[in-house]
Amino acid sequence: MIKLGICGYGNLGKGVIDNLKNFSDFELKAIFSRRKLTDVEYPVYSIDEIKKLEGKLDVVILCGGSATDLPNQTPYFAQSFNVVDSFDTHAKIPQHFENVDKSAKKGGNLALISAGWDPGLFSITRATFNAFLPCGADVTFWGKGVSQGHSDAIRRINGVKRAVQYTIPKQQALEQARSGNVNLTTREKHLRECFVVLDDDADKQQIENSIKTMPNYFAEYDTVVHFISEDEFYKNHLGMPHGGRVLRSGKSTPNVSQSLELSIDLQSNPHFTSGILLAYARAVVRLKAKGETGCITPFDVSPTMLYSGTAEEMRKNLL
Amino acid sequence: MIKLGICGYGNLGKGVIDNLKNFSDFELKAIFSRRKLTDVEYPVYSIDEIKKLEGKLDVVILCGGSATDLPNQTPYFAQSFNVVDSFDTHAKIPQHFENVDKSAKKGGNLALISAGWDPGLFSITRATFNAFLPCGADVTFWGKGVSQGHSDAIRRINGVKRAVQYTIPKQQALEQARSGNVNLTTREKHLRECFVVLDDDADKQQIENSIKTMPNYFAEYDTVVHFISEDEFYKNHLGMPHGGRVLRSGKSTPNVSQSLELSIDLQSNPHFTSGILLAYARAVVRLKAKGETGCITPFDVSPTMLYSGTAEEMRKNLL
Repeated sequence: MIKLGICGYGNLGKGVIDNLKNFSDFELKAIFSRRKLTDVEYPVYSIDEIKKLEGKLDVVILCGGSATDLPNQTPYFAQSFNVVDSFDTHAKIPQHFENVDKSAKKGGNLALISAGWDPGLFSITRATFNAFLPCGADVTFWGKGVSQGHSDAIRRINGVKRAVQYTIPKQQALEQARSGNVNLTTREKHLRECFVVLDDDADKQQIENSIKTMPNYFAEYDTVVHFISEDEFYKNHLGMPHGGRVLRSGKSTPNVSQSLELSIDLQSNPHFTSGILLAYARAVVRLKAKGETGCITPFDVSPTMLYSGTAEEMRKNLL
Repeated sequence: MIKLGICGYGNLGKGVIDNLKNFSDFELKAIFSRRKLTDVEYPVYSIDEIKKLEGKLDVVILCGGSATDLPNQTPYFAQSFNVVDSFDTHAKIPQHFENVDKSAKKGGNLALISAGWDPGLFSITRATFNAFLPCGADVTFWGKGVSQGHSDAIRRINGVKRAVQYTIPKQQALEQARSGNVNLTTREKHLRECFVVLDDDADKQQIENSIKTMPNYFAEYDTVVHFISEDEFYKNHLGMPHGGRVLRSGKSTPNVSQSLELSIDLQSNPHFTSGILLAYARAVVRLKAKGETGCITPFDVSPTMLYSGTAEEMRKNLL
């Protein structure tokens, strides 16, 4: 049994706990949290108490956010434990990698960063597609799904009570990408659809305008805004669906077109992401047992390390 | 530069040669063949001459067939070189693995078997999907594409001059698999469409009947037979398109459905397969340099080993 710790008890941490029944080689030994948790059936520790648990956990999954939690928590935990995180701020990955690598090596531990579906499953798909079909190009589409960042941005507008934003890939752009056109603009690729509940005295027209012209979030996209009642919001918009696809098309030789595509369609984004984190946590424990330390990414992990069964079972059932 | 040898100069061997321009870290140093090849610009050797080239090649790609070539050739070459093959007779993989492993270990070499798209890309996809979403089931569909084995079977019927058979996944079965029904029968999943050119005196009705009732090949499927002219055959049916998809759907927790799908659409099956073989040949050379010997499969290879660029480039461009 792999002795597991998690840090963070939000959607992702709860997803890991829900998913444990599908990962029977793990037992959860510790939840680290900044909050006092009262309704959980597992031992809870403060983040300051990591030294107490050194040597008692095989791996810790960090379930915090990339903006403020992981840049500190992953290097901090990597001093004492093997760790896995889902760091996804793309521009800051080299710095994060370096910090975590230094800290993990100091502690003699193995750390894997950026496990999830993008980065994660989509990254290994891009790498494998590139390796097999080097002459070509890829396009990634996201959605249909909830973007937490964009939903938050709407909620910060005065007069907005609740809001959710769905990122939706445009069908026409998908068709174009499949036929080899990979030079699509941001506006051509995705539509942003917003469902907004207003405060009683809010100005509809002004809020719609504030959303549609918000730089970085909406100004560069075709954006549709629906104002709905709070009842409808609670009835239809509390889920966390998501999805996306990676397409690669290219010519292995002139006039011979080859197309590769991976797509995922998720009713719950955190549930799926937590499964990926658990599989990489298993791989980290196995790679550590082979003597690896420092920081790695999903690129450095073979399917054999991820899969629960033996190599013989894999050859028999999956090859 | 990786010093490459290939054994076999059929569709797959020619595909490897065509694809070398996309794999600029390789140089082809030797073609092994049982035939006298006169029109090639590379050094040609008889299969008996492998001892002569020991120490002069980093890896040899075996481009023969699984029925009679590879069971002998892969263990034979693995005594002298690191090798990659595309062995695809599923029931015989454990025996082939053992033979190759013994022989590669004896020679101090590394051998990778069953590289291609199925087995190969589809196998690593099934393993990864299983690892990330353990509670679920997968279905593999093949086509639309030419089945060489089924085309051959038709050609063996008296009165048939030329024939090609396309395996076509049924749209309705695909939809059912996507909504989680993975218990589909052989007949429900694929249609077999045959294009046949007859000898002048052949009995159309009798030949159609012979095809449709042929056990193991057609009797278990819905089969459509078209009789066409030799002109039409040469005009429309000389390509080697293929494709397929791996679907996995499951519930990470009750009432939460997750669906994953990989699909490929190839205008040339041998060209794509040859790219996969080259990427695994690169990985074999790298893993051998790390000290690995014996037999491995695509399950044992990480994306980092497959991709041409450095780990830093991968983190920057693909993560």
